[in-house]
Amino acid sequence: MANLAPVISDIEDAAIRLRGHACRTPLLNAPLLDADLGRRVFVKAECLQKTGSFKYRGARNAVAALSDAQRAAGVIAFSSGNHAQGVALAAREMGSKAVIIMPADAPELKIANTRALGAEVILYDRDTEDRDEIGGRLSGDRGLTLIKPFDNPQVIAGQGTTGLEIAEQAAAAGLNSADVLICCGGGGLTSGIAIALAGKAPALKPYTVEPEEFDDVARSLATGVIQTNTRRSGSLCDAIVTPSPGQITFPIMAAHCGPGIVVSEEDALRAMAIAFNRLKIVLEPGGAVALAAALFHRTDTKDVIAVASGGNVDAPLFRMALEKYG
Amino acid sequence: MANLAPVISDIEDAAIRLRGHACRTPLLNAPLLDADLGRRVFVKAECLQKTGSFKYRGARNAVAALSDAQRAAGVIAFSSGNHAQGVALAAREMGSKAVIIMPADAPELKIANTRALGAEVILYDRDTEDRDEIGGRLSGDRGLTLIKPFDNPQVIAGQGTTGLEIAEQAAAAGLNSADVLICCGGGGLTSGIAIALAGKAPALKPYTVEPEEFDDVARSLATGVIQTNTRRSGSLCDAIVTPSPGQITFPIMAAHCGPGIVVSEEDALRAMAIAFNRLKIVLEPGGAVALAAALFHRTDTKDVIAVASGGNVDAPLFRMALEKYG
Repeated sequence: MANLAPVISDIEDAAIRLRGHACRTPLLNAPLLDADLGRRVFVKAECLQKTGSFKYRGARNAVAALSDAQRAAGVIAFSSGNHAQGVALAAREMGSKAVIIMPADAPELKIANTRALGAEVILYDRDTEDRDEIGGRLSGDRGLTLIKPFDNPQVIAGQGTTGLEIAEQAAAAGLNSADVLICCGGGGLTSGIAIALAGKAPALKPYTVEPEEFDDVARSLATGVIQTNTRRSGSLCDAIVTPSPGQITFPIMAAHCGPGIVVSEEDALRAMAIAFNRLKIVLEPGGAVALAAALFHRTDTKDVIAVASGGNVDAPLFRMALEKYG
Repeated sequence: MANLAPVISDIEDAAIRLRGHACRTPLLNAPLLDADLGRRVFVKAECLQKTGSFKYRGARNAVAALSDAQRAAGVIAFSSGNHAQGVALAAREMGSKAVIIMPADAPELKIANTRALGAEVILYDRDTEDRDEIGGRLSGDRGLTLIKPFDNPQVIAGQGTTGLEIAEQAAAAGLNSADVLICCGGGGLTSGIAIALAGKAPALKPYTVEPEEFDDVARSLATGVIQTNTRRSGSLCDAIVTPSPGQITFPIMAAHCGPGIVVSEEDALRAMAIAFNRLKIVLEPGGAVALAAALFHRTDTKDVIAVASGGNVDAPLFRMALEKYG
């Protein structure tokens, strides 16, 4: 596939590679929530995926698609979060070796978890060192293959398996037409799901959801040109904050998605509390923005599917969300 | 079936009745948890079932198995908790009418939720009124059918569909032999799963798990005679506290289960925090005792499946568990 956009058969191939490895996460529904809202809301619970987010799907597919020689040499990724854990686990499962470049000020727990999954973690100083330089040098010296977090066709195809499952589960639930709201960072998950739905369930329409002040995708979709965020950090929704959509992902999203939706951090925290009470799942703020959009940003009564992309939240933040909105 | 124990074909019939209605809950696995423990731990996440516990399965099967005339007349149940919500939703979905007898001092939220699911809630005073007298009178006057919480063959068969799914999901995960630990109150879930596993996956061995001081099933299994708890309330694990195992459920458990396991309330709270961190699910204390047994009461390295039976916990208690053990 090189740097071309994946097509539906790439996603179907990914589904075969992931079978027996990725969790087929449930499409949850809570009758009491439907009653509150006056329409049906379904939640694709990717927080229940291995490593706590959808990222494992793309990582596993990308590592599986390498040649034996590439896998034997190892892989490398830059990440302080969910992609790191997905790549680490996928590499370990497939007998490869993962090097993860993380900022030295990343949360201790995330560094420890990534190491516990068998990865070699290399820390760098954000202020004085150049991440790309370190990564480039290591890749060259050791022959490591870079697994980008979203602008990689095999990663997109892996994330797209979420969309194949949504298409099947929606049909089984009698959902023939619905809006599908997706937590969006660089667009790997959204573009993968968009391709899957266009191929398998075209009456399910994808929409991106982002936090306020980090709405690069919404602005890119509105203008037709890739836009960049001014701020790069400082969001509770850190898991889905990226500078801008990808060169591969953006055209896919522009072709398939409706206008981007933007929600506040407070709405994400409220959605976390409702997911706790009504669905019994743990969401991180960035993984809750799609549910927040379904709950608080809709005036019609069309059925909706919210993709809950991850649940890697520390206990103090979760307790705070429950204290405010539980 | 009258009052006879269900057999495997009754559970298979129940699975057909529940198809498209009950959630096929995932069998979750967390590689980091396995690494901590030195063996594989899988969690059957029934907290994700409709209404937040496995109880919906048995209720739906029991209501579905009634005659049209019985369903038209309506059903009645005694419950302050998860069985109430399961019966209320099942009745509403099938065009029946549910009357739920609840103590007047039950939590406001559970009363409100049961009403929101369409049930007629009748409150009684625990000190001055006789629940059975009220129920008997209402049943007689209105021709309502009583849906008992566990000692009912169709309820047991419905709960047993959890075991059919465990057998299929364990095989798909390559789990050929394992201990299956089950949160146990009156034994409806345990006995249903035990019949399903005996028929479909005999190398998966069921065990009951109860909280300390409410270990009537463990003592009954040890002595071969039904034993009763001294205390009837006052446990954080209230969802699985019953006076004694049932006349139908106990012989099934005695025939199939290993020795009963007993865990402390503190271990249940610790398991809730670990389920939050590693599995991204919300468990109530009574729904966490099986996972607690898997985590803290095992010295061997045999693979284990813990059934997480419910997640209906109030936010303040969940926050407390995270504060202590998160």
